[in-house]
Amino acid sequence: MPVAFRDPPLLNAAGVHEPWALRTIVEVVTDEGLTGLGETYGDLGHLGKVRECAQALIGLDVHATNTMYARISAIVGHTVTDLHGLTGVATKEKSIDRVFSPFEVACLDIRGKAAGVPVSELLGGRVRDAVPYSAYLFYKWAGHPGQDPDRFGAALDESGLVEQASLLIKEYGFESIKLKGGVFPPDQEIAATRALHEAFPGVPLRLDPNAAWTVETSIRVGQELEGTLQYLEDPTPGISGMAEVAAAVPMPLATNMCVVTHEHLPPAIASRAIGVLLLDHHYWGGLVRSAHVATLCDTFGLALSMHSNSHLGISLAAMTHLAAATPNLTFACDTHTPWQDGQDVVAPGVLRFVNGAVPVPTGPGLGVELDRDALAVMNEQYEKCGISARDDTSYMQRFEPTFSARRPRW
Amino acid sequence: MPVAFRDPPLLNAAGVHEPWALRTIVEVVTDEGLTGLGETYGDLGHLGKVRECAQALIGLDVHATNTMYARISAIVGHTVTDLHGLTGVATKEKSIDRVFSPFEVACLDIRGKAAGVPVSELLGGRVRDAVPYSAYLFYKWAGHPGQDPDRFGAALDESGLVEQASLLIKEYGFESIKLKGGVFPPDQEIAATRALHEAFPGVPLRLDPNAAWTVETSIRVGQELEGTLQYLEDPTPGISGMAEVAAAVPMPLATNMCVVTHEHLPPAIASRAIGVLLLDHHYWGGLVRSAHVATLCDTFGLALSMHSNSHLGISLAAMTHLAAATPNLTFACDTHTPWQDGQDVVAPGVLRFVNGAVPVPTGPGLGVELDRDALAVMNEQYEKCGISARDDTSYMQRFEPTFSARRPRW
Repeated sequence: MPVAFRDPPLLNAAGVHEPWALRTIVEVVTDEGLTGLGETYGDLGHLGKVRECAQALIGLDVHATNTMYARISAIVGHTVTDLHGLTGVATKEKSIDRVFSPFEVACLDIRGKAAGVPVSELLGGRVRDAVPYSAYLFYKWAGHPGQDPDRFGAALDESGLVEQASLLIKEYGFESIKLKGGVFPPDQEIAATRALHEAFPGVPLRLDPNAAWTVETSIRVGQELEGTLQYLEDPTPGISGMAEVAAAVPMPLATNMCVVTHEHLPPAIASRAIGVLLLDHHYWGGLVRSAHVATLCDTFGLALSMHSNSHLGISLAAMTHLAAATPNLTFACDTHTPWQDGQDVVAPGVLRFVNGAVPVPTGPGLGVELDRDALAVMNEQYEKCGISARDDTSYMQRFEPTFSARRPRW
Repeated sequence: MPVAFRDPPLLNAAGVHEPWALRTIVEVVTDEGLTGLGETYGDLGHLGKVRECAQALIGLDVHATNTMYARISAIVGHTVTDLHGLTGVATKEKSIDRVFSPFEVACLDIRGKAAGVPVSELLGGRVRDAVPYSAYLFYKWAGHPGQDPDRFGAALDESGLVEQASLLIKEYGFESIKLKGGVFPPDQEIAATRALHEAFPGVPLRLDPNAAWTVETSIRVGQELEGTLQYLEDPTPGISGMAEVAAAVPMPLATNMCVVTHEHLPPAIASRAIGVLLLDHHYWGGLVRSAHVATLCDTFGLALSMHSNSHLGISLAAMTHLAAATPNLTFACDTHTPWQDGQDVVAPGVLRFVNGAVPVPTGPGLGVELDRDALAVMNEQYEKCGISARDDTSYMQRFEPTFSARRPRW
């Protein structure tokens, strides 16, 4: 079922978030009456594939993930254009993994309920009781054009970002900070990064321009930011460009764009393009397949963090279970949770932040329950919002007609 | 509990199998009365570690494999000399993985029983209904010195091996053949390989001299055997030697000796030393960790088969479940089952060979049950047999005092 929830005007290299963010909620029901939840992208083309595949999975056992994957492969079968240009290149495997993921998560939810254990236990058991997330800062407008300012206010310069960070840290207790860059010329983002470093000394800091820079610019920025960044995320497009940058900057490079599917791992590893992989179970084929990738990263000395798109509580629970059971996932994960500002399809109470970390749900399965009233409201919002696929670029061009999402831009 | 079972005088590069093969049977019992089985090496030092670790795991949930692994790591803590020199170098990680493995398998057995599904379902579901194994040929004496000949008879030349292959294929229906080499000078083993190729045309054939050859000899043999081998297994010691051979011979190289733990994978992949990894859950840390390694191999274009030491039915069941749920394990697996000649600790009926393949057990968990009478007999054999650790070399030297297990030998 597709849902929409209000999203602030968060700026990025592709444009600006529209007033509504979309997700698809998957509920799997077994003949024994158990139910499991999954959450994935809400874009119409993806929603259609998810619905088509759901029909093909009816009757399978919740354990039969190899068969589910094969059936979904047969239906998806070809590369689907990437959803919004911010999670890297599209491949056939990634297209399949994206559709498979919510079903796999829902089946784990059911398996956990059947066994009376949290999903983290099905993944090997939690090695941490709470999963740290980072304060995910965005340049943003005060509000959507034509609407009142939202409670987060504008953040279009250093002081706005520091204020935003203070608010998120005050409310959530985050102990790491990530800044979404690629919005303003690099020197402005260098200044913003330094301002955050000074305002929050000792707090690990990352910068993610979503491949908005050339190799030369990336190297310059990387060198200028020596000593301020825990890692630099996707400064430039492509594995070979990242490898050039990696060899010349003092901090590790992280990615959720140039390595997004298995075929990218060998060349990225051979060329030492990255030091940190940002896992995302939404496009790495669910939780178990993500755990396999985590082992691979450990084998090759790659560190791990976790990527996030706008999401709701089912995904936050899934991310938390995966991270809790992944020993080598040692960096704080990304989450858009603060920007959803309390809107959710799961009943409140289970998911909360303590010192920037989400205590791992201890109930069976994912440990979260669908709030069917909230789901109905959000589904109605989806039907009425007029958005059927995320398009940050066109939305931005409504207000800045000359805006181009071309990357590298600087 | 340690057990011993009769083993024929099978020759290899390290010497000859002693009259008794040892295994340790692990049984995990939950407070809900469920039981799970695991099987591992029987060597005394290993048995001691398994017993010590068992004490440290009491009270843990069967899902808590990350915690089990951490506790075992803390106890094993250092590199343990390899058991018998035929499964590659010893490392700290391998030492831990070896002790962890039978507990992990036993916990999966319990989880499968609790969920009412076979272990293969816990690993993603079977993608094949039966797992093909190869006829594992050995040069052998007619019987142990001082004992009557066994029913397999001598195999000390081409005709003996062809006869042995015919017997195993007649009784088990195998559709692949593996010859354990490294026993006679390479030209004799080339001749034997050719004789098998002629006697069984079209049957995939492998040769495994257990690193008995120099790089030069390996290249010569590999080139001479062009067109007869599916793969050549461990011709020479070490990753760099294997890489030299791999670059010069026409068939892929396989290994269960130069890549036996995660740290070996990056250099082996970078140097293109191997084309096939022989998985073995007994030293890759159980079934789930082996599944992770399988994904890694798929990512890097390595094919998969499965290695075997002398084992009983618990291991055969575990190997079969893992292979059944591993899509990219496409080569027939190795097994010593024919040499155990009906001796087992599991009740007969479930494990059988049909056309050389073991139908995947469909009962809950591993699907096999302990035969407690047989276990008691085998435990008594262990107590009486006078062997506490496998030592093919010393046993050989009793009859050939000048025998040396030095490798490379030719």
